[in-house]
Amino acid sequence: MSEVKPLKEKRFDLQAVNKYATLMTLGNGYMGIRGSFDENYTEQTRGMYVAGIYNRFSSNDVNEIVNLPDLVGMKIEIDEEVFTLQAGEVIEYERNLDLFTGELERKLVWKNKKGHRFRFLFQRFVSKADLHTLASKVTITALDTTAALTLKTGIDAQQSNFGKQHLIEENVRVIDKRIMHATYRTSESNHLVALSTMINVSPVSAPVFVAKNRQLTASISQNLQVNQPFVLEKISAVYTSNDIDAKEVDVASIQSVEQYSLFGYDQLRNQTAAKWKAFWDHKRVKISSIDEMDQFALDFSIYHLEIMTPAHDARLSVGAKGLTGEGYKGHVFWDTEIFIAPFHLYTDPAVAKKLLIYRYLHMEEAKSKALKNGYEGTLFPWESALTGHEETPEFAAINILTGNRQKVASAIAEHHIVADIAFAVVQYYYSTFDEAFMQKEGIALLKETALFWISRASDEGGRLSIIDVIGPDEYTEHIDNNAYTNYMAANNVQQAVFFLEKYNHEDLTFVKRAKEFLQSLYLPAPNEEGIIPQDDTFLTKPEIDLTKYKQKQGSQGILLDYSRAEVNEMQILKQADVVMLLYLMPNLFSAEVVKKNLQYYEEHTIHDSSLSKAIHAIVAARCGEHEMAYRCFQEACLIDLGPNPKSSDEGVHAASLGANWLAAVFGFANITMEQNQLVISPKLPKNWSELSFPFEWQGSSLVFTISQSELSVVKKSGPEVSIKVARQIYNIQDRMLIPLHE
Amino acid sequence: MSEVKPLKEKRFDLQAVNKYATLMTLGNGYMGIRGSFDENYTEQTRGMYVAGIYNRFSSNDVNEIVNLPDLVGMKIEIDEEVFTLQAGEVIEYERNLDLFTGELERKLVWKNKKGHRFRFLFQRFVSKADLHTLASKVTITALDTTAALTLKTGIDAQQSNFGKQHLIEENVRVIDKRIMHATYRTSESNHLVALSTMINVSPVSAPVFVAKNRQLTASISQNLQVNQPFVLEKISAVYTSNDIDAKEVDVASIQSVEQYSLFGYDQLRNQTAAKWKAFWDHKRVKISSIDEMDQFALDFSIYHLEIMTPAHDARLSVGAKGLTGEGYKGHVFWDTEIFIAPFHLYTDPAVAKKLLIYRYLHMEEAKSKALKNGYEGTLFPWESALTGHEETPEFAAINILTGNRQKVASAIAEHHIVADIAFAVVQYYYSTFDEAFMQKEGIALLKETALFWISRASDEGGRLSIIDVIGPDEYTEHIDNNAYTNYMAANNVQQAVFFLEKYNHEDLTFVKRAKEFLQSLYLPAPNEEGIIPQDDTFLTKPEIDLTKYKQKQGSQGILLDYSRAEVNEMQILKQADVVMLLYLMPNLFSAEVVKKNLQYYEEHTIHDSSLSKAIHAIVAARCGEHEMAYRCFQEACLIDLGPNPKSSDEGVHAASLGANWLAAVFGFANITMEQNQLVISPKLPKNWSELSFPFEWQGSSLVFTISQSELSVVKKSGPEVSIKVARQIYNIQDRMLIPLHE
Repeated sequence: MSEVKPLKEKRFDLQAVNKYATLMTLGNGYMGIRGSFDENYTEQTRGMYVAGIYNRFSSNDVNEIVNLPDLVGMKIEIDEEVFTLQAGEVIEYERNLDLFTGELERKLVWKNKKGHRFRFLFQRFVSKADLHTLASKVTITALDTTAALTLKTGIDAQQSNFGKQHLIEENVRVIDKRIMHATYRTSESNHLVALSTMINVSPVSAPVFVAKNRQLTASISQNLQVNQPFVLEKISAVYTSNDIDAKEVDVASIQSVEQYSLFGYDQLRNQTAAKWKAFWDHKRVKISSIDEMDQFALDFSIYHLEIMTPAHDARLSVGAKGLTGEGYKGHVFWDTEIFIAPFHLYTDPAVAKKLLIYRYLHMEEAKSKALKNGYEGTLFPWESALTGHEETPEFAAINILTGNRQKVASAIAEHHIVADIAFAVVQYYYSTFDEAFMQKEGIALLKETALFWISRASDEGGRLSIIDVIGPDEYTEHIDNNAYTNYMAANNVQQAVFFLEKYNHEDLTFVKRAKEFLQSLYLPAPNEEGIIPQDDTFLTKPEIDLTKYKQKQGSQGILLDYSRAEVNEMQILKQADVVMLLYLMPNLFSAEVVKKNLQYYEEHTIHDSSLSKAIHAIVAARCGEHEMAYRCFQEACLIDLGPNPKSSDEGVHAASLGANWLAAVFGFANITMEQNQLVISPKLPKNWSELSFPFEWQGSSLVFTISQSELSVVKKSGPEVSIKVARQIYNIQDRMLIPLHE
Repeated sequence: MSEVKPLKEKRFDLQAVNKYATLMTLGNGYMGIRGSFDENYTEQTRGMYVAGIYNRFSSNDVNEIVNLPDLVGMKIEIDEEVFTLQAGEVIEYERNLDLFTGELERKLVWKNKKGHRFRFLFQRFVSKADLHTLASKVTITALDTTAALTLKTGIDAQQSNFGKQHLIEENVRVIDKRIMHATYRTSESNHLVALSTMINVSPVSAPVFVAKNRQLTASISQNLQVNQPFVLEKISAVYTSNDIDAKEVDVASIQSVEQYSLFGYDQLRNQTAAKWKAFWDHKRVKISSIDEMDQFALDFSIYHLEIMTPAHDARLSVGAKGLTGEGYKGHVFWDTEIFIAPFHLYTDPAVAKKLLIYRYLHMEEAKSKALKNGYEGTLFPWESALTGHEETPEFAAINILTGNRQKVASAIAEHHIVADIAFAVVQYYYSTFDEAFMQKEGIALLKETALFWISRASDEGGRLSIIDVIGPDEYTEHIDNNAYTNYMAANNVQQAVFFLEKYNHEDLTFVKRAKEFLQSLYLPAPNEEGIIPQDDTFLTKPEIDLTKYKQKQGSQGILLDYSRAEVNEMQILKQADVVMLLYLMPNLFSAEVVKKNLQYYEEHTIHDSSLSKAIHAIVAARCGEHEMAYRCFQEACLIDLGPNPKSSDEGVHAASLGANWLAAVFGFANITMEQNQLVISPKLPKNWSELSFPFEWQGSSLVFTISQSELSVVKKSGPEVSIKVARQIYNIQDRMLIPLHE
């Protein structure tokens, strides 16, 4: 068990500039700021995003998360030479995202074209103490000679979403000759975004302010003296009309900057570091592994799970790239409920609840979508943003070679998200016994999602089928009776009936329909070889050797050799589908069937989706396939952290980071639930001597520590907890040491 | 007399990147493409503009010329290192804008970080044979070793006007796996812009096409062999719904590229070079000077006068920066009629006529503006674009320190543009005797502009005053009886009466009002010292020593020391005002008065406007102030061509380039008109042994060649022409040699 280590970039590499900008994003769930360099590079994509601030650029476009005016960029000139690491010589270089403190730091020594050396220290953080605040600091020291320094920084609204400008400049000001302030309005969604920023310089000098071409800039000119550091601090604040009354955003951002600049960078950073320390003390998963990467990958994952989640506001949920980039336009998918929410549910259930409230708040829009598609209940959008309307574009990008546009199938057919949300509701309930939630939001969600499935099924000679869907495996479109979908739908309806009856919500018609549905719904059973058919036709399709494509997993290389239509007609999986089902419902089939299906489907899965690998790791771990489990886990950890310099340009793979946590807790610790009974049956990888993590369960705060031979359970607070280990129930009052046997 | 020399950039200098991008703009009046580097630099502003394609980004904005998707940028990687002159080493470098052929060429040898050398030749031109076409060519040769080359280029719609995106992507395609094609719509003005481009590569290889994030890109990968050049040619075409029917723009641009790519770069370039040769043969001003810069500055000026003028379309006029940048948002000012049109009038009168038609086509909008302001007739907008409405923003940019916005005075009070247009009408008539134009458009313009002045004047005890105006000198706002304005207004009304009577247009009421106006209008006479008061109060204001500001002319440095309001209350001129009047009406006052006023006002003029210096040169030359004239001329030539690396970032100073031509022809050759009598009284600078230029006059094509002692006149075509030299009339039938005496 080691300290939380930083994410390091050891050399300046332009090829990886956007990967590291993504990985080194700072944030607090309210906002995210990509870890772009302070100075500009043509290849570099800057980005600052506030959760919930979406806009449609034109009627041809869907809502996308708005790339806000930049607050961290600066232009530095030394002796009239623009500071860039492309020119001159980089003598020392180190960049660290300190996950432990939430600070991004870059130290370097640069020799300019004249041969003079300068030491630079760049620091930056997004506050965890005040969601609206960020700060940066740059220290420049001439090592060889005096030199003329010019530094320009401010608010740069030339930023856009790859050329799409969402913001109309409403107001640009310098307040009291100190605070730069600007307000922008999103062109269609009509949000106001107020930014304020103030710089302090040592040695003291007064900036010259200029506003031009959507840039408000403070310019500082000084002579650098040898070994006398020049220090610039910049404290900034962001408020939007989504947070507070539109009339207040200007004042709020200005006052915030006024107040915090009295503290100065270091003190503010220390406040944030203290918050991060509390986070790590509470939420860290500790791994003693021969391979240090395992611990680091988990630290990296939960750092990002924390900064991607707008825990402050139940009107918001988590985008598929968090707030780290513009991939998937900041939209919310099933990723949230199935991959991301569990981390919160088992470390801070109130956050998981908010993510469910987000869905509850948009039941009306989901009902409209169902109605529009001829169904009852709630059909939640495949992609959603602030309004809860379907944000999946109706048509995919044009095929530039043929000129054809295909309808996007996901919004039409990837309906399992409805059952995924219901699954998360039930999971939340059994993990918290939050009766108040369940009686109001929970039951409403369960009933209306169930109603959707009841209306969605079609009678085929007395047997109910769910036809023309897409399961999690998106390489198989428009199929009938997807195993994942049907079982999840059945679970959804079953749970709805159960909780309606539990709370005596009288709706006899519904219950009658639900029970008929459950009696008649076709649930694909394992065939003679024990294989659960992924859908009605999957197992009849031809197979091909996937080795070549599996070697380049994540790249969708198969689509270079085959059309989508051709892939659809072969036994080729993009990602876990039946295996996903086996992960979520571990007790549905015998261990033998689970193992057979894991093997069968793993063979046919390319893992082109980042949602896949860690799920296979979990099921493999549970099956005792230790090597496969650990290999899958380690490969999953490389989805963002691997050597590919372009893997994460558009943002982190948020769900995969959630899945890394799932792999540790539900795979290697092998926690499962039998209804409301916690079961733990650890399956540590050989490399691991210990795994320790916190776990919130039914109002108690537990810490599990697992070695190859023992399970330690410490209850830090809350009522007595019962845990089942190797078919035996243990009641934990305070702490307990339970021996483990294979 | 020498060949037309290229504009050279001898070393790669990032500080001047946008100046040279402006100066090295290619164009043909239909479109302009900034001479940006093919590869990207963070400081570099790319730009492609089509005359007439304006848009308003939001209701907070005025129309601006739209920066269109880029067609010339490319990303080159060699052995996975991005080609940029900021890295590696530049061993040889030379960039030439060949004014003679219209081709931009860059030759360089670059050593990459590994130490391998590569030779690059970049070529580019905008067609003068087909307004819609442009082409580029890049040749890359490995000099030391084989290397892996990747080159990406296409259509890049991430371009914007400093962050303002005007274009909505309507259509992106690759036609026949060869032609990249995209169509965009301006968001408010609703123009369609279709772009097509095709690349051909040698050695042959097929590009991979990708469309993403508003970029349609062809990617070429090849291995460079030592000393075997890799050549890429790119032929592109642009059509807009302002040119042809909206339904036709796609097909037109695609067919154009299909057709022209059969020719190939070199042949197309030769066609354009032939057109440019004809241009130079016909229109060049030839100067034999000790200082080669004089000839070069004139060549540079008329190159730009040619490419800035949309001679193909009378619905368009010339922006204050031509099509070289976004300064003044592409708007049309009085610059066109007074500074730019004369070059066309005396080399190709049909073009000058079109520029007047542009005003004629917008008389309705000018009438509306007059009406709205309580006047009669036509009040032409101070700034106009495609629609002919006033485009001057109502309020200036906010004062970021005080938060105040001032009304922009120009649109409210800089009314002399009305008389300037009338002046150009009369000038056009006497230079062409185009009766058809004069009877229809000319007389309409004269009458309605005259009507404006009649309604604009106010009776002050029997004397008519024109109060609360701004003259050409914008450092003196809201003054009464500006000499320039009053004399020009009187001329306007006088000419209207004259031509109405000439053509028997019966409007007795108008004529009566006009004659009363002429009788009563106050025309400021020289005071006892011979000084014509610039306005009612100017000569009573305090004076300060302007030496300091004159040394930094063009920088508006005075406004760092004094507020605009303070400057307004002193005898400080931004630019020629009374001197401007003396230039346009050389016979209004005695030579002695002219000289006195030149001296007086020159002393009080900072020349912070680029419109000023060359006008002083003209009047000084006419006064025999040879040294002052030549100094002013040479300084005027440096407005764009001088050493300041930031002088022209936002575009060329179009009017000043026109004024350089005026200085040669109306200053040093000293051509004036006594009504329709051409008068020439050369005043060559001592440095010049010869000055020769073409001159279209009343249907005849003349060539004047002036030495210090002789004037040669050659009439190449047209009827007999009478010329007055030293008070003597010469009738030119064919050619004539006239001796000159001081």
